This record gives sequence, structure tokens and C-alpha cells, in this order.
Amino acid sequence: MNPSPHMSPDQFRAAAHQLIDWITDYWSRLDELPVLSRAKPGDLLAALPAAPPEQPEPFDALLADIDNLILPGLTNWQAPGFFAFFPANISPPAVLGELLSAGLGVNGMLWAASPAATEVEMRMLDWMAALLDLPAKFRWSGGNGNGGGCIQGTASESTLIAMLAARHRAVARGADPSELVAYTSTQAHSSVIKAAMIAGLARAPDDHSHLRLLDVDDTFALRPDLFSEAIEHDVAAGLTPFYICATVGTTSSTAIDPLVPIGELAHRHGAWLHVDAAHAGAACICPEHRGLLRGVESADSLCFNPHKWLLTSFDCDLFWTGDRAALTGALSITPEYLKNAASQAAASGGTLSPAVDFRDWQIPLGRRFRALKLWFVLRSYGAENLRAYIREHIRLATWLEEQLRADPRFELAAPRPLNLICFRIAPRAGESHSDADARSRELLNRLNSTGRVYLTHTVLPTSAGPRYTIRMCIGGTFTQERHVREAWTLIQQFA
Amino acid sequence: MNPSPHMSPDQFRAAAHQLIDWITDYWSRLDELPVLSRAKPGDLLAALPAAPPEQPEPFDALLADIDNLILPGLTNWQAPGFFAFFPANISPPAVLGELLSAGLGVNGMLWAASPAATEVEMRMLDWMAALLDLPAKFRWSGGNGNGGGCIQGTASESTLIAMLAARHRAVARGADPSELVAYTSTQAHSSVIKAAMIAGLARAPDDHSHLRLLDVDDTFALRPDLFSEAIEHDVAAGLTPFYICATVGTTSSTAIDPLVPIGELAHRHGAWLHVDAAHAGAACICPEHRGLLRGVESADSLCFNPHKWLLTSFDCDLFWTGDRAALTGALSITPEYLKNAASQAAASGGTLSPAVDFRDWQIPLGRRFRALKLWFVLRSYGAENLRAYIREHIRLATWLEEQLRADPRFELAAPRPLNLICFRIAPRAGESHSDADARSRELLNRLNSTGRVYLTHTVLPTSAGPRYTIRMCIGGTFTQERHVREAWTLIQQFA
Repeated sequence: MNPSPHMSPDQFRAAAHQLIDWITDYWSRLDELPVLSRAKPGDLLAALPAAPPEQPEPFDALLADIDNLILPGLTNWQAPGFFAFFPANISPPAVLGELLSAGLGVNGMLWAASPAATEVEMRMLDWMAALLDLPAKFRWSGGNGNGGGCIQGTASESTLIAMLAARHRAVARGADPSELVAYTSTQAHSSVIKAAMIAGLARAPDDHSHLRLLDVDDTFALRPDLFSEAIEHDVAAGLTPFYICATVGTTSSTAIDPLVPIGELAHRHGAWLHVDAAHAGAACICPEHRGLLRGVESADSLCFNPHKWLLTSFDCDLFWTGDRAALTGALSITPEYLKNAASQAAASGGTLSPAVDFRDWQIPLGRRFRALKLWFVLRSYGAENLRAYIREHIRLATWLEEQLRADPRFELAAPRPLNLICFRIAPRAGESHSDADARSRELLNRLNSTGRVYLTHTVLPTSAGPRYTIRMCIGGTFTQERHVREAWTLIQQFA
Repeated sequence: MNPSPHMSPDQFRAAAHQLIDWITDYWSRLDELPVLSRAKPGDLLAALPAAPPEQPEPFDALLADIDNLILPGLTNWQAPGFFAFFPANISPPAVLGELLSAGLGVNGMLWAASPAATEVEMRMLDWMAALLDLPAKFRWSGGNGNGGGCIQGTASESTLIAMLAARHRAVARGADPSELVAYTSTQAHSSVIKAAMIAGLARAPDDHSHLRLLDVDDTFALRPDLFSEAIEHDVAAGLTPFYICATVGTTSSTAIDPLVPIGELAHRHGAWLHVDAAHAGAACICPEHRGLLRGVESADSLCFNPHKWLLTSFDCDLFWTGDRAALTGALSITPEYLKNAASQAAASGGTLSPAVDFRDWQIPLGRRFRALKLWFVLRSYGAENLRAYIREHIRLATWLEEQLRADPRFELAAPRPLNLICFRIAPRAGESHSDADARSRELLNRLNSTGRVYLTHTVLPTSAGPRYTIRMCIGGTFTQERHVREAWTLIQQFA
């Protein structure tokens, strides 16, 4: 093909340098942009041409459209006033890691398809296991030979593959697949229900024939007594408990499920215990928070997302298991056209024998070299700075909680183990809960309409019934004390 | 936190510019690097520190390790001599799109979570549908209101979600989930078997109780007569055919399944037809190749991967369906803490009503803004250059096929509709097939050991039994005529 249709090296370099400058400038403007997009559905669709261009367009045209078309349609997750959902941290080193991964363009589906992609990932999982002080059974080095971990896209995928591994193990032990039962709490992430639907264990979100959603205590943590009862009941009915999902830091309120008793229960009944620490896991790099994972040694798998609160851009969910044979048993299929690489690795006689092929650890076949961004983050910050980063957000959350507690217009809606504050408007004398909740809803809408902050809500069970609750999670890469103080000023103003 | 633990804007800018230069330089060196990594298992693991650093390291230290540690461990997928598997094209504009997506750091799980992420993606799917001339039923604009498409990570995920949508529809129509049967050919991608395992329809790769793998014809395409027989047989036995996966361009040999008769069969029995055009779909942007998709109007879903042969970095699989209600029925779960956004979008009264939330179209919850890279590619190249790019690779593949056909030492092993050539050593007079196949294997090993090229193999069914077959796919971003000529010289030299 002559001439080349590609940008020349000089053109690419110039465009990339322009884009780097645009991104640096965007980060510096984040404090001024509305956090929640003000776009209406269809605004951008109407502005985009109906048909693709036949002829090339210059990079300047693209860059102009980013300003004119894309920016108004963004909810700025990296804005310092973003307190919604859980954070999705980016950081300069993580963006550099993503850039390098894109520039290399290798696919780590098999060890031989790019050995570095697999081996850096193995080592990063061990590094993070060390920072969390995880038991040896989850590690590649120094473990029992049946453990290890890798990067998944999201915690939803970890929840699913853990369920598949659990089913594989249960069926291998003689269970009837149609008589398996999974257990989690009503406060677990919706991905547990979704996993059951995908795996064929639930026909719809409200089909509980193979999945029990059990009530929580007044801290919104699972109740081991209810789990025990439900399991005994199912066993008596001839069913097989095969999977328990416990959550360390629920999405609604960062409730902490007690791993020690639930682990004993799982062990007694041979069920797989999966621990979803998607958000709260990040805090466990600080020794003072590692108690949140007490009992994790009895788990069969565990995940946490550095892409939430540990500066490593989405997608980066870390999944560890102590039973990788069950996992690969559930997910491994080796057709002929993928066999070269594996046999080549085995034949090459290295120390890693047999070679680890991460396609057998996940739903997709192909995979990006995502370990680079984690490697860049851990080395660029160093563990000390990462701990300081977590502690600063917790300090700010503690401060805000104190302000809310001291102000009689508000009530705290849940314990705050880390950086998520759940609160609502307290009913006035004689005011019903539902009227107070309507005022909470109105408060949230007014806060979000300022463009300065973005908070979200949940509904928590209480002795007075389900209560509307405002969630404010302080965990943004660029969030500083002044942003939390400004949010508090707005909250007081609109309350 | 004081001082900030983050790189300053100037530090980031400087590091990013260094990295851009490194990447540009890497691309210019790709022709000199060994295509297949020579690393042995464990080499890199041994070179990486056992523990993470406590203190920050400068970016220069990272950059040095990319050269010293990472490069030797890469199989260079972007090297012009990479003819293995299918390609995984990157391109300068796609890398810029990935960089921008990383820099923005928005999560497009819900429309309101960043409206631009959803709406650019919708428009890109319509643009690609226009380039492929897909029926209106798959489009957002001008369709029937129950169609559309989005970006998935991989074709494996598309295969799976199509199977889940098919099951949802069949069960909604009254089928017993335990009596569902899926059908595909023995040449379909392994992800069909993996999807059945994930969905709970197969206990192991060789469990065919709910999945029929049917023989192919001598072009390795599915045989409608065998499908018809199998389906009639299953229906007579009281089972429900619910899913057929047809492949346009199989992984082993780019065999083209006939969509017209299989579509009629699917329609007659109410089964969902999914078309996997992961690799070959790219060629259908050229009018002269659109015949490969003849009959696609009878499909319920379709996928193709611009990340293979259309210059849009992994991961970017496009998935279209004509029945999005079935898909979201299989995958949608809306817990309270995700409801604000959807209701807000609905209440804002825009033209997109109700707002599309792509979390309900996929296995994960979160999602990157991947449409940016496709937008950048389509606009930076323009459709004309993309067609020229495809045609050039097919011209080179045609040339190489002619050389192989003219040389009696070789035999062609499969028809070549596009850019994948399947060949093997022809048996000498009196030589057994297995001896000739051993020479093919030896040829492949010698080729790959040069470091100049990387080819892979498959095994194809023939009237004489399974035959070892060398696959050479010409589709690299930087692959030019001289690289194909050099490969041919090496093939002749080692044959």
C-alpha cells in the first residue's frame, strides 16, 4: 500500500504531545467543571454526524470535538467534588501504564503470547498480597502450589468466576448441579444475583430457588446465625450449599461481613467462600485496617479493585484464589490452535512449569497488559505514599462525620468503617420518616444541581422500614480538604 | 495531605512525553525485534523484586526497566512479521483514543454516569453498521426500536451474552431451562463451549448434553443438513433448540458458514441465531466482501472485532442485536443505589427515552470509554483508507497463496476467502500424511525460531483424518509486501 495510510511517527508524536497537554490541562480544570453532566438524553447523538467520514480528518478536528462535544457530555468522575458511587481513581502513573500497554499492543491470553504480561501480573498480585498481608495460600511464591491471582476487569467478573469455580468443585465432589444453593446477604453487590442469572442458577433477579439473600444485622452486616439456619435447612432438604459470598465493605454502606464465623460455616459444609472487598480492600494496605479481613484465611477466593480507591485506572480488579485447580477446571478449554504456545512453554523447560495461561482464569480469551499500570502505580508512589493517601481520605471522612453528628438536622445512617458516610435528614418533631426522606431526596438533588459536587443515594433497611440515605464517599484522586469543607457548606446550606 | 503524593502536572507532562517518544521509537524498531519472545518461564519473575517498594521510584527507573526487563519478555504482536493467531491491530489514532479514555477516567456503566460515553458508542455502532451495510434491525437510528449495539471486550463475551439472551427468550416463551439445546459446528470458536460451561449448560468441554457440535463440509463450513437433522431429532425428543452460533470466518481457517439456510432453520424453530464474524467482519467494510454476511438479516445478534483487523486496539468487540429486550432481560438488575441516574435521565425528558444503560448489555458493571478509540480510528483514517488497508492485506495473501500453489512441496489446506492462508507440507511419493505433518511441524518451529516471523498451527479434519496445518494470517498494522516476501523466502528455505 503506497502511500502508508498511517500517521507518520512525527505526526503521531505531535498529536500525542498535544493530547498529553490537553489531558494535563483537563486535570487542572476539573475543579471548575460541573461534576454531574448537564446533558440531556440525545443531545450528543444529535450533534454527531449520522454517517462515518469517507476521507481522513486531521487530529485538530478531533481535539476540537473533544472540547465542544465530549466535555459537556461527561460526568467528571475525577472532579474533586465527585463523591458518588465509589470512586474510580485514575492517577498520572496509571495513565502512563495504560498508554504503554496500548502502545505495546500485546495480548496476554497465553504465557507464550507475551511472557512478560503474565509474569509481571503474577508478581504484582504477590506484591499486593504482601501489602494486604494475605495468607500464603493466595500467593504465587511461597504458597501451596494451588493458589495465585490475576487481574480481572471488574469485581462482577470475580464474583462470577468464583461461583463457577465453586460449582465445578461441588460437582466434581458429586453434587447434583440442580441442587446447588448459594448464599449472600441482602446488602451484597447486585453482581451476585447477576452471576447466578448468568450461571443458570436464577431465571430472574427475584428467583431465589438457588440463591438465598439473607437479612443483615443493624450494622448491615450478614448474620451468621441466619446463614447457619438457612444452610441447615437446605442440607436437611437434600440440597448442597456450594457458594457463599461475603462482603468486606458493601456498596450501600461499607458494612463489614464477619469472615471468621462465615468461614467456619463454609468450611463445615464444604462451600466455597468468596470475599468481595472491591472497595474496602484498598484500606487494608494500612496495618490499622487489616482487621477488616480477619478470617480471610478461610476464604477460597478474594477480590479487591485498585481501580476504585488505589489510583490504578479502571479496569483493574485483583482476584486471588487458594484453589486455582477448581477455577481452571471451570474455565479451561484448549482447542488445537491455541496449543502451540502452551506446549512450547512447557518444552522450553523454564522454572514455571507448567506455564500459567491466564485465559483459563477469566471469561474472555484475550487480555490487555493491565499489570503495567499497577506496576507503575506501586513504584511511582511507593507503599508509604499509598498508605498516606488512604489515611488522608479517612481523616476527611472522620471530620465530616463529626460535623454531621454535631448538627441535629442530620442523622447518621450507618457505621463508617472507612471513607463512606451515610446520612439523612433527621425527622423534625412530629415529622414522618417518609417526609424527612423526601427532604433528603430534595437535598441530594439540590446538591447535585450545583455542579460542584455529585453524591448518590441508597436505601437502607431500618427497624422503621426502608429509609432513603445519602451516600458520600471521599476517595477521589484529586479530592482535598477544601473540597470536603465546601461540600459540607453546601449540605448545611440546602438542609 | 501535604505535600501532594501525585506527580505534578509538569512531572506528568515530562514523563508522558518521554513515554510517547519511547513508544514511537518502539514502533520503528519492531522490524528488528524477535517476533516470538525467547524468554523462558520464570526469567522475568526472577528479575522482579519479591516485595513492593516502600518509597517512590523516579519515572526514569521505570522506563529503564521497560527496556531491560519487559522488552525481552514480549512476543511482539505489532511486529510486521507477526502472522500468528489473528492480528490484534493497534494504530496511532487508537492509541490516542485509549490515552484520552484513560485521562478522562469516566465510567460509562449508566447513561447518566457519563452521557457522552453512551452516546458516542451508540453512534459508532451505527457508523460501523453503515460501513458493513447491516440491516436496520441492528441499528439505533432508523431501526425498529428493539435493536442496537455496543462495545464488548471480546467476541467470547458476545458469544456468551447472546446465549444468555437466547435462553431468556426461550424460557420466557415457556421452554424448560433443562431442555434447551444449542448448536454450532466443530469449527466454531472454543468460546461457544466455554459459554455453555459458564451458563450451566455443559459440565465440561466434552459434555454435549445441551450443546451439539456438528461436522463440517470440505470447506470447513457448517452443514445445514446436519443441523436440520440434529434439530429435528432433538425436537422429536421433546427438547427445545434455543441457540445456534454460526461463524463467518472460523479461527482455524476462516471458513464461512452459510447464513441463509441456517437462518431459515433458526427462524423455523424459534432459535436465536448468533453470528460470530470476529475476524472476517472487518473485510465487510468493502462492498466486494459483503456477500460473506449474506443472510445476516435473519440473525438475532452479530459481533465483529475492530481490535483484530481494523486498527482499533484491543479490547473492542462490536455486538449488535435485533432483540435488545431479550438481552437486557437476561442481564438487567437494578439495585437502589444505581437508580438515581436512570430515573434522572428519564425525568430530564430528552429524546432518548428511556436512557440506555450499557451495564445491562454486558457481564461487568463498569466500563471504559472505549468508543473514543473507534471514533478516532474511523475519523483519522476515513472509510476509504480502511478499505484500502483491508484490500492490501488480501492482495498480499492472494500473492502468497499463488506462490504456495505453484510450489509442489506445499499443499493448500483450506479455501482462502480473505487474509488467512492455511497450508502444509505435501507428502512426498510414498510418504505418509503423518510424516509429512511432522515436517510441517518442524517447518513451523524453524520459522518461528528465526525471530523474523511468528506463525501458528491448527489441525483440520480431512478425509484422511486430522491434518496438521500451518496458519499464516496477513493482517498486521505495519505489515508490508516486503515482510510477506521475506516470510515466503524463509518458508522455501526451511521446507
